[in-house]
Amino acid sequence: MRAALNAARDAGAAGEVPVGAAVVLDGRIVAVAGNAPRALRDPTAHAEMLAIREAARVLGKDRLTDCDLWVTLEPCAMCAGAIAHARIARLYYGTNDPKGGAVEHGPRFFAQPTCHHRPEVFPGIGAQQGAALLRDFFAQRRR
Amino acid sequence: MRAALNAARDAGAAGEVPVGAAVVLDGRIVAVAGNAPRALRDPTAHAEMLAIREAARVLGKDRLTDCDLWVTLEPCAMCAGAIAHARIARLYYGTNDPKGGAVEHGPRFFAQPTCHHRPEVFPGIGAQQGAALLRDFFAQRRR
Repeated sequence: MRAALNAARDAGAAGEVPVGAAVVLDGRIVAVAGNAPRALRDPTAHAEMLAIREAARVLGKDRLTDCDLWVTLEPCAMCAGAIAHARIARLYYGTNDPKGGAVEHGPRFFAQPTCHHRPEVFPGIGAQQGAALLRDFFAQRRR
Repeated sequence: MRAALNAARDAGAAGEVPVGAAVVLDGRIVAVAGNAPRALRDPTAHAEMLAIREAARVLGKDRLTDCDLWVTLEPCAMCAGAIAHARIARLYYGTNDPKGGAVEHGPRFFAQPTCHHRPEVFPGIGAQQGAALLRDFFAQRRR
């Protein structure tokens, strides 16, 4: 989660909403990414999506079976869907997102009977640090 | 929808599940893509995602306000989330997908109170052709 938090911090410094993600296989970080929809001019460029795509590229396959995803914020529906498509084994995430989250909020994607793959889910990991990054970012924006 | 159906047919010929999508702005096709997770070794490479990302690249911005998305199959949660992030104005889709769809099935993403952008939705456009492509594809696989 430290790598994901660092990526979130870097994203915030670059003017993006500070969210970071890392894909880990056998205790080794395969891919790390920060949120970058503005920099990449890509509405799908959430940290989780970029980390999953990079991990798939590095590992040379479209299924990340046995990989874990660490992310500083509760994933949205797009990212939760991608996590299922990628067959991520375990999802560790930080701060809850009552507005945009899709794991414990809104569509609760992994709880849907139609969900074809459910990772093990571990919420609240590094939640304070992740939340502080977001709070500081939006506080600065409001000035 | 003709362009999306052609892209779906090409995807099927390449061994991918035959789904195609097109982004249209002011009656002009900005991007067309077929489903390609295997070819690209990318679990996020659904037709809608590729078309949205390409349209954002072509238009040079991360919001596709005023753009319409045409897709041959009901979008999944990942793609529905991306459609909302991209601020797609109108969504035209073909075949219903009771197993993986997230518009009229499962998470019914656009009906969630937390959904931050809802396109106008027009289902059933070219549904017979889209369904026939999928049926033929899976029938051949089972042989």
